[in-house]
Amino acid sequence: MEFKVTHRAGDCRARAGIIKTPHGSFETPVFMPVGTQGSVKALSPEDLTDADASIILANTYHLYLRPGAHLIRRLGGLHRFMNWKGAILTDSGGFQVYSLARLREISERGVVFRSHIDGSKHLIGPEEAIDIQEALGADIIMAFDECTPYPADYDYVLKSVGLTSLWARRCMDHRKREDQALFGIVQGGMYKDLREKSASELVAMNFDGYALGGLSVGEDAVTRQRVIDDVIDFLPATAPVYLMGVGKPEDLVEAVRRGVDMFDCVMPTRNARNGALFTTTGRLNIKNARYAEDDRPIDERCNCYTCANYSRAYLRHLFMAREILAYRLNSIHNISYYCSLMSRMRSAIKDNNFDHFCSEFYTLKQNRID
Amino acid sequence: MEFKVTHRAGDCRARAGIIKTPHGSFETPVFMPVGTQGSVKALSPEDLTDADASIILANTYHLYLRPGAHLIRRLGGLHRFMNWKGAILTDSGGFQVYSLARLREISERGVVFRSHIDGSKHLIGPEEAIDIQEALGADIIMAFDECTPYPADYDYVLKSVGLTSLWARRCMDHRKREDQALFGIVQGGMYKDLREKSASELVAMNFDGYALGGLSVGEDAVTRQRVIDDVIDFLPATAPVYLMGVGKPEDLVEAVRRGVDMFDCVMPTRNARNGALFTTTGRLNIKNARYAEDDRPIDERCNCYTCANYSRAYLRHLFMAREILAYRLNSIHNISYYCSLMSRMRSAIKDNNFDHFCSEFYTLKQNRID
Repeated sequence: MEFKVTHRAGDCRARAGIIKTPHGSFETPVFMPVGTQGSVKALSPEDLTDADASIILANTYHLYLRPGAHLIRRLGGLHRFMNWKGAILTDSGGFQVYSLARLREISERGVVFRSHIDGSKHLIGPEEAIDIQEALGADIIMAFDECTPYPADYDYVLKSVGLTSLWARRCMDHRKREDQALFGIVQGGMYKDLREKSASELVAMNFDGYALGGLSVGEDAVTRQRVIDDVIDFLPATAPVYLMGVGKPEDLVEAVRRGVDMFDCVMPTRNARNGALFTTTGRLNIKNARYAEDDRPIDERCNCYTCANYSRAYLRHLFMAREILAYRLNSIHNISYYCSLMSRMRSAIKDNNFDHFCSEFYTLKQNRID
Repeated sequence: MEFKVTHRAGDCRARAGIIKTPHGSFETPVFMPVGTQGSVKALSPEDLTDADASIILANTYHLYLRPGAHLIRRLGGLHRFMNWKGAILTDSGGFQVYSLARLREISERGVVFRSHIDGSKHLIGPEEAIDIQEALGADIIMAFDECTPYPADYDYVLKSVGLTSLWARRCMDHRKREDQALFGIVQGGMYKDLREKSASELVAMNFDGYALGGLSVGEDAVTRQRVIDDVIDFLPATAPVYLMGVGKPEDLVEAVRRGVDMFDCVMPTRNARNGALFTTTGRLNIKNARYAEDDRPIDERCNCYTCANYSRAYLRHLFMAREILAYRLNSIHNISYYCSLMSRMRSAIKDNNFDHFCSEFYTLKQNRID
């Protein structure tokens, strides 16, 4: 993997760049749709490409449990298995073990947990996380970390940061594939000095990129922005920075402003399946009776397949009738919205008017809240 | 609408033809995927076109209840509402009132029933069925009929045929749009003389086409084939014959052999959503553990998008993980299978070797039954 910063905004820390992977290059800041189980829910690879997605995220924890990483390797790796020709990033499994699995027991060896699918018992430590991710064959893989709970007291977080650093080292030592980039995950809760400790220990190991973990776990937006501001200072300007699991459009704007390059979040696809659609003038809920005879597209400023071909009235009908097509059309729109938002931010950075972009973004967005 | 028979098989009553509608021409025999609520479940219009579908069926009963036929008319009609550029046939609502609605009361005026969605009370008679179908704007509409239950005694069916003929006359008299073809529906249960009575009364009214109704309601295949043989003799050779709601691939083959031109059935899409996939060598159930590491497409003889891009192993994984994409990919395949089967039958008719096609079809099919 290669990363190159091509532009820096004059008025903030936002930056634009290019990441080159074995499965294509893409510009940053970038949004990665989430394909948890080897499928971005309701979408085909072509839908993703048409929506301007160039890299997707897949979940190590889910694919390890079902259908199994070694099965996927035998079938030619995750790209071939799911017919996705673009880049893939797999997460470390740490967050899902923390948020989904049952009966977790954490030790230096790793985490013993029970599957959320069938209750079976498993161990994933740093070596297993690397083995699984090498079997899946993503372009970017993540070091195994402990996703610190929130809130957590200082002593717990201090120990947790130590464990994440120890595991990061073992991930580095264990990896065999040279065609995959390996990112470290900065933990440290909401404590500035622990974030610094975590970041500096990881930076000393010279990862290909750095993720901000342990965010979007219940903290407020101001706290999150403060942590981002803190951590960015401790990271090398030459490596990509990835904010994991965040978030709302305004969270992405605020994080890009602070220097973040990569994002993933289930929000656009999950909201789509609940009928909540993103537009340049705020969110709308397609269930609302006011759209029953509304012949307009979801967003008149949007160029996606859904907006080019379907009215709010039809989308509302599909959703109320629980038609499967509703989930796909809504997801195409929301992913297009997120990818277009990133594209507009990249243009603003290149044109050196990111601040102007932000004020337009917030002004437009407040025009309607459903 | 224009219908022209272009070829007749030398060895049976199978025939090939062309139907011309305001939304394109298509060859017969033809299979119409079912878009009950204004969407062929899990598929987009492009998916249908790619699968070689040229005409779809939509359900009058469902669209009348939700979102409402007049709403669809105000939004430009069903073609525009659902973004389908091909032809559409709407059924009369008679079968759904019979199979889905509650508390039916049948009189000469029409049928009073309660909605399966919210229990609300409605009346649909021949005039209402025509009004609804004119509002929807399909290319081919159906006369309102009483779908005779099965089994039913002679006297009941005799009265029922009388009612269907009365309603057919009122449909004819009530219609206003000249751009829609109107088909009559032959009833008469399993009684040859009542089928003859029904057919001859409808033929006297000079419909644009004739449907065989009241089949696929529980009778066995041999009885159904006998009824088809009976009725075909009573219909003019110049009008298209449509067998409603049938059926399995072998049912289509047997009906084409007997002279039927048009079909619709939920089987390919419903089975797809249950993981049952049609292949030239029989049905397979994608849930089966034997497909867990099977790198082959569903059917090596199939050219559909699903077979070109995805393995049985991936499709099984998607299905087991309940991914929405599973329903779409499976439906694309099954609709492609049905459309390809019709295309192969048309070629066999044109090449004057329909009997040979049939023996190949049955031989191949018996290679594997899951």
